[in-house]
Amino acid sequence: MAQETVNVIFQPSGRRGKVPKGCNIIEASRLIGVDIEALCGEKKVCGKCIVRVEEGHFEKYNIQSSMDHVTPWQEELEAKFINAEDREKGFRLGCVANIEEDILVFVPEESRAGKQVVSKAARDINIDFDPAIKLYTIKLKKPDFEDKVGDWERLCNGLTREYGLTGLTLDILTLRTLPGALRAKDWVVTVSVWNDKEVIRIQPGKVKHAYGIAIDVGTTTCAGYLCDLTTMEVISTSSLMNPQCKYGEDVMARITFHMTTPGGLKRMSDDIIEGINSLIKKAIAQTHPEKKKIRKKKGQEGSDGPDEYREIIEEGAEYLRINKEDIEDVTIGFNTAMHHILLGLDPEPVGLAPFPPVIHHSLDIKARDLCIDINPSSYIFAMPNEAGFVGGDNVGVLLAEEPYKSDEIQLIIDIGTNGELILGNRHKLYSSSCATGPAMEGAQLAFGMRAAPGAIERIEIDPETQDVDYRVIGHDKSRKFSKPEDMKAKGICGSGILDVLAELYRSGVITKTGVFNKKALKQNPRFRKNPDTRQPEFVLAWKEDSSIGKDIVITQKDVRQIQLAKGALYAGCKLMMKRMGIKKVDTVKIAGAFGTHVDREKALIMGLFPDCEIEKIHGVGNAAGDGCRAALLNRKKRDEANWCARNVQYLELTVEPTFEHDFMEAMQMPHMTDEFPHLEGVVPDHVLHQGPKGPVKPEVKN
Amino acid sequence: MAQETVNVIFQPSGRRGKVPKGCNIIEASRLIGVDIEALCGEKKVCGKCIVRVEEGHFEKYNIQSSMDHVTPWQEELEAKFINAEDREKGFRLGCVANIEEDILVFVPEESRAGKQVVSKAARDINIDFDPAIKLYTIKLKKPDFEDKVGDWERLCNGLTREYGLTGLTLDILTLRTLPGALRAKDWVVTVSVWNDKEVIRIQPGKVKHAYGIAIDVGTTTCAGYLCDLTTMEVISTSSLMNPQCKYGEDVMARITFHMTTPGGLKRMSDDIIEGINSLIKKAIAQTHPEKKKIRKKKGQEGSDGPDEYREIIEEGAEYLRINKEDIEDVTIGFNTAMHHILLGLDPEPVGLAPFPPVIHHSLDIKARDLCIDINPSSYIFAMPNEAGFVGGDNVGVLLAEEPYKSDEIQLIIDIGTNGELILGNRHKLYSSSCATGPAMEGAQLAFGMRAAPGAIERIEIDPETQDVDYRVIGHDKSRKFSKPEDMKAKGICGSGILDVLAELYRSGVITKTGVFNKKALKQNPRFRKNPDTRQPEFVLAWKEDSSIGKDIVITQKDVRQIQLAKGALYAGCKLMMKRMGIKKVDTVKIAGAFGTHVDREKALIMGLFPDCEIEKIHGVGNAAGDGCRAALLNRKKRDEANWCARNVQYLELTVEPTFEHDFMEAMQMPHMTDEFPHLEGVVPDHVLHQGPKGPVKPEVKN
Repeated sequence: MAQETVNVIFQPSGRRGKVPKGCNIIEASRLIGVDIEALCGEKKVCGKCIVRVEEGHFEKYNIQSSMDHVTPWQEELEAKFINAEDREKGFRLGCVANIEEDILVFVPEESRAGKQVVSKAARDINIDFDPAIKLYTIKLKKPDFEDKVGDWERLCNGLTREYGLTGLTLDILTLRTLPGALRAKDWVVTVSVWNDKEVIRIQPGKVKHAYGIAIDVGTTTCAGYLCDLTTMEVISTSSLMNPQCKYGEDVMARITFHMTTPGGLKRMSDDIIEGINSLIKKAIAQTHPEKKKIRKKKGQEGSDGPDEYREIIEEGAEYLRINKEDIEDVTIGFNTAMHHILLGLDPEPVGLAPFPPVIHHSLDIKARDLCIDINPSSYIFAMPNEAGFVGGDNVGVLLAEEPYKSDEIQLIIDIGTNGELILGNRHKLYSSSCATGPAMEGAQLAFGMRAAPGAIERIEIDPETQDVDYRVIGHDKSRKFSKPEDMKAKGICGSGILDVLAELYRSGVITKTGVFNKKALKQNPRFRKNPDTRQPEFVLAWKEDSSIGKDIVITQKDVRQIQLAKGALYAGCKLMMKRMGIKKVDTVKIAGAFGTHVDREKALIMGLFPDCEIEKIHGVGNAAGDGCRAALLNRKKRDEANWCARNVQYLELTVEPTFEHDFMEAMQMPHMTDEFPHLEGVVPDHVLHQGPKGPVKPEVKN
Repeated sequence: MAQETVNVIFQPSGRRGKVPKGCNIIEASRLIGVDIEALCGEKKVCGKCIVRVEEGHFEKYNIQSSMDHVTPWQEELEAKFINAEDREKGFRLGCVANIEEDILVFVPEESRAGKQVVSKAARDINIDFDPAIKLYTIKLKKPDFEDKVGDWERLCNGLTREYGLTGLTLDILTLRTLPGALRAKDWVVTVSVWNDKEVIRIQPGKVKHAYGIAIDVGTTTCAGYLCDLTTMEVISTSSLMNPQCKYGEDVMARITFHMTTPGGLKRMSDDIIEGINSLIKKAIAQTHPEKKKIRKKKGQEGSDGPDEYREIIEEGAEYLRINKEDIEDVTIGFNTAMHHILLGLDPEPVGLAPFPPVIHHSLDIKARDLCIDINPSSYIFAMPNEAGFVGGDNVGVLLAEEPYKSDEIQLIIDIGTNGELILGNRHKLYSSSCATGPAMEGAQLAFGMRAAPGAIERIEIDPETQDVDYRVIGHDKSRKFSKPEDMKAKGICGSGILDVLAELYRSGVITKTGVFNKKALKQNPRFRKNPDTRQPEFVLAWKEDSSIGKDIVITQKDVRQIQLAKGALYAGCKLMMKRMGIKKVDTVKIAGAFGTHVDREKALIMGLFPDCEIEKIHGVGNAAGDGCRAALLNRKKRDEANWCARNVQYLELTVEPTFEHDFMEAMQMPHMTDEFPHLEGVVPDHVLHQGPKGPVKPEVKN
C-alpha cells in the first residue's frame, strides 16, 4: 500500500507540498524546502522552531486547516517555550507537532532560518610558491613508421627529455582525452601534473594558468578561496551557509541526526557536497564578465587556452573566464565531524568517548568519487584530523599561524560553533576543544540568532542609568541616532553576545557571579521578572524597536549560558597553561568570524581568556581558511599539516581531574587584579573588586 | 517535434518495437534486440544480413507490412547477394533497406547470429604463487582514553607491528567500511592488500579466501577464469560472445563503426562492459549451490567470513558461495582495438598508419571507474599493448608460453579474427600481425559461419571419387553414418575451413594454385558453375543434408579468401624468419580456439606455416587467457608483461619491401619438398609435385 500523505502549506512563503502523514512540521519543512530554525537538531530542547498552525478554510489553497490536524499539545515539552495565550493562538513546536491531516502553517520571523552574513575574506599571509599542480607545455613529434610509439609513451618520453619528469601515471579519464588533445593543436599540449606524479589534465596548445580552490567547511558557514595556482592570487571568494544547519546547529546535533535517521548521513553528505558545488560555481561566476561586454574575436591567434575558456572584450583586453573544469586542485579544512559527514564516514565514534576519528591522516580523493564538480581527474585534499573534536580546521589555523616556528608562547582561540584552543611555541604545542556550546554564536539564548540582518552586534550600557544603546546588522546607525521603527531588531548574534555580557558586567547590571544586581536595578523598567517563566530578565530593545513585535531581552538563563561558554574557554586555557607549566601567554590570537568582530577590550573584561596586554591580542580572521589556502598553494604545507596533526598534543579537558572545579571558578567574571592586571582602568573599581574569588554554582537547568 | 516512429516486428522471434522512421533494418534489429549477422559492420559488402520483408496484413500483430514500406532496391549493392527470384519474394539486405512505414521482417536462419560454441577451457600451466591481493587478519586493541588514536592509524599500526606492512593507503569507499568492520567482530578484521600498498577491502573477522578473475576479451568471444587467489585453483570458467559482434565482425569494422556513428564508441564500450559483468555473474553463479540443497544454520560459529557469504548444506559441509564483492582482482587481456574500445579510448589512430596505440603500458583502473561490478575499490589490470595490431592478448600468449626463457626457436601463431605471430627465443623476439581476415573463422565465405551447431568442422574427400564425408557441430556422427535429415548442416566454421582446403588439395579437387581442377572434376556432379554468379563451386553438403534448404558449397572465391589468409600467415612467418636470419623453426605452437581444433597434419598440408616436424607442432589452447591468468596469480608476471610489450620487436609486415611478392607466392599450396620435407608421404606425389613454384595472381575481386 502506498504511504498516506497530507497537504501542507507554509506561510508567508506560500510553499506547499504533500508529505507523509505523521511526520512532524520540521520534517515537512525540509521536504518542502522551507528553512525553519532547528538549532538542537530536533532534540526538542531549543524551542527555536515555534510555528503557528492556522485555523479555518483557506480558499486560495482550497485547504481546511485546524490545530486538531496535528498531534496533541505536549505540556512537558512545549510549555517551557510557549505561553498559554500563544498556545490558544495555535503556536506549537514544529519538532513536536506531528501532522495528521492537511494544515497551513505560519512561520514567524523569529523562527525563520535567516541567511547569515558570512565574513570570511582572505587575509594576506605569507605562503611559499609550491602548488601541487604544475603546468608543462610540450611539442611532440608526430608518429611515423620510424617512430610509432603510442601516445602516452610519446608524451612521457617528451616530458622526461624536456623537463626531467619520470614515473608519471594518469587515470583512465585523462587518458581518454589524450589522443584528441595531441592532435588538436599539432601535437602541442599542456599537461597538469599533480605532485610530480600524476597527469590529471591534458589541454591542447599552450596554457598558462591553472586554478584551485581552498574551502573551509564550518559547522555553520563555508567559505571558498579561488586561487590562481600560477600567480598565487586570490581571484575570488565566496561563502554560504552550511546546508546541514537544517539538521541541527552543532556537531553533536548532526551526529545525533545520523544516529537516529536512516539515510541521515547520506542526506547530510549530499547536502554539503551540493553546497560545495554551488560555492565553486559562485566563485567561478565572479570571473565571468557580463555577457553584454563580450564580443568574441574570431580566428584569434595565440590565445593561451582552448577557445571557449577565453573571451575577448571589444578593446582587445583579455578576460579571465574560468570554467569548472579549470579548477584542478581543491583543499578542504573542516572539523572532524564535518570531515566525516562530508566524506560519508560514520561520525558516531567521534561522538562517543574516547572519540576516536575514523582517520587522522590527510586524504587525496578523486573529485569524481565525491561528486565534486571540477576537473574530474583532480584530487580533493582533505586536511588531516588531530582528534575527534579537533580537526583539519584547527590544523589550518596551525598552518596559517605557525606557532611551531615561534619562540613566543601563543594562545590561539578559534571560536566557531565549537571552541578550539592551541597553546605553545616551537618547543611544545597543545590543542584542546571545549564545549562552548552555540551560545557564543547566539544560539540557545532566548533571543539568540545568527549574524543576520536585525541582529544586535554592539551594545553600550550607561553605568549610571543602565540605559542601553545598541547597533544592529543591516542598519548603519546606533539606536541613539535612529527612529525606533528603523532598528528592526530581531535578536542578538555571536559578536553581540560578548558585548552584552561585558557591558552588563561593566555597568553593574550583573555582579561578578553573573546574577542580576537587584539593588542597582530596583528603579529600572528594563529589569523585570518574565510573567511566564518567572525568570529575571533585562530588556535590551523595546518592542517598538523590534521587527518581531516583542521586547528583546537577555535572561538570567542566557547570562548563565554565556558564562558556561566563557568558563569552558577560560578553564581550558588555564588547564593547558598548567600542563605547559606557564603562568602567562605572550600573544592571544582570536580566529574565526567571531575574532574579526570581537572587541578585544570587552573580551578581556569578560575573562574569555587569561590576561594579556591588549596590544598583544589579535584577531586573525579565518585562519582555518588561510591554512587551507596555504596547503593549496604550497604542497609542503600538506606534509606540515600531517606533521601538525600527529605532533600537537591533544588534551581531553573533560578527563582532567581539576577541570570541573576550574570550570566553575572560570564562570565568574574576572575580578582579581593579580590575575588580570590589564583590566585595571578598564573596569570600574567598584565592579572589579566585588569580593573574593570562588566557584559559581551552576544552578541552571535546561 | 518528437521523432516519427514506425512499428517493426521480427520473425520468427516475434520481437517487436517502435523504431525511428528511416533507420535501416539492422539498426532496428539492434534497437529491438534481435541479433542479425552483420559481419562487415554495415559497410554493405558482406551480404550476410539478408532478410525478407513480408507482404500483407498480419492480424496477430495488427500490422500492414509491405515491401514498399522500405526504401527501394539498390541494384549495385544488393544484386550481388540476392538473385532476381529472391528479390521478388521480398529479400533485401538489412543494412540497405531503410524502414519508411510499419513492417514485419523475417530473418532466415542463415542470417541469424547464432550462439557460438566457445571453447576456452583453462589449461594447466605453471604459475608461481604471488597474487597482487593478499589477506591479513589482525586483532586490534579497542580505543580508550590512554590510546585514542583513530581507526585507520590503529589498523596501520597493527599491520606494521604484526606483518611489517608500511606506507599503506586506502580509498574513500574502503575507508567508509572501516569503522563498521572494526566494531562488527570485536576488533578482528581481515584486510585485502593490493600490491603491498593499498587496502582495497576490510572484512570483519577472519576470512581465508580471496577471489579474482582473468578475462580474455576476444574480438568474437570472451572467456573468464574465476580463481581462488589463495589456492590458485580455477574455480569456474565462463564465456560469452563479444556483444560488439553486432557492430561488425573484425576490429576494422568496429573502428569504422566508431568513426561513422556518433556515440558509437560509448555504445560498444558499454556493451562489452555489460558483457564482462554478465561473464562475472555466470562465473560466480557456478559457485552457488542450488537453493533447494541449502539450509542456513543459524548462529553458526567460527565461519570464516560474513554470514551471508557462506551457506551450509544439511549435512553440515560448507559450500562456497562467492558474491560479486568477493571478486577482488581482475586481469584483462585483449587486442589493442578491443582494449581501446573497452576503455573508451579513441581507437581511430589504431586504424590509421602508422597505427600508434593510445598507450602501451598496462593500466590499473578502479573497477568502479569502468562500472565493472565487483568489489568497488579493486583494480582492473589491463594488459599492456605491443603495438596497434598486437595487444595484450599477444602479451598473454608470451606470458603463458615464455619463449623468452627458451633456447628453442618458437613460432607461435594465434589465429583469432586477426592473425598474430611470435617468433624467437631468449635472445630475440619478434611479433607481427597479419590480416588473415575473418575467413579463418568462417566469415566472408559463401557458407562461412561461426563455430555453432550445424557448422561443418571436419571433412574428408576421397582422392579417387572426390566424394565428401563430413561432420557437423552438434551431431556426433559423420555424414557416412547418418541420415541426411540428421545432419542439419548450415555452413562451415573456422576449424572446418582448413580441413576443406587441405582436403580439396590432397584429393586433387584444386591444384596448387588454388583453382578447381576441371579435368579431374569433369564427371563430378559436385562441381558446377553457380547459375547466378557464374563462379565455379564445389558442393560439400547437398540440400537434403542442410537445415537451410540449400546446397552448401565452397566457391572459387572462397578458396581464394582462404588462400589470402593462409598466404598472409605464411608470408608473415617467412618474413620474420628472414629478419631473424633462420631457415627453420624448432617448435610451432598454435594458440586460440582454432589451435585447439585444428588438425596439425592438415595445417601443414595447407602450408599455414613453415615446415616443422609434426611432433613439434602443438595446439596451446587459449594461451592469451592463460597469460592473463598468470598475471592474476603472479604479479611479477605483470612487470614481465610490460617488459614483453616493450621488448618484443614488432614488425609491420605491410611495409616490408618483399612482402607483397612473398605474400602472393605464399598463396600457393605447398609443393616443394625442400621447403616442406615433412609433407612427404602426407600429400600424394602427383599433387605435391605439380610444377614449379611461382606467385599466384590475386585475381579475386570483392
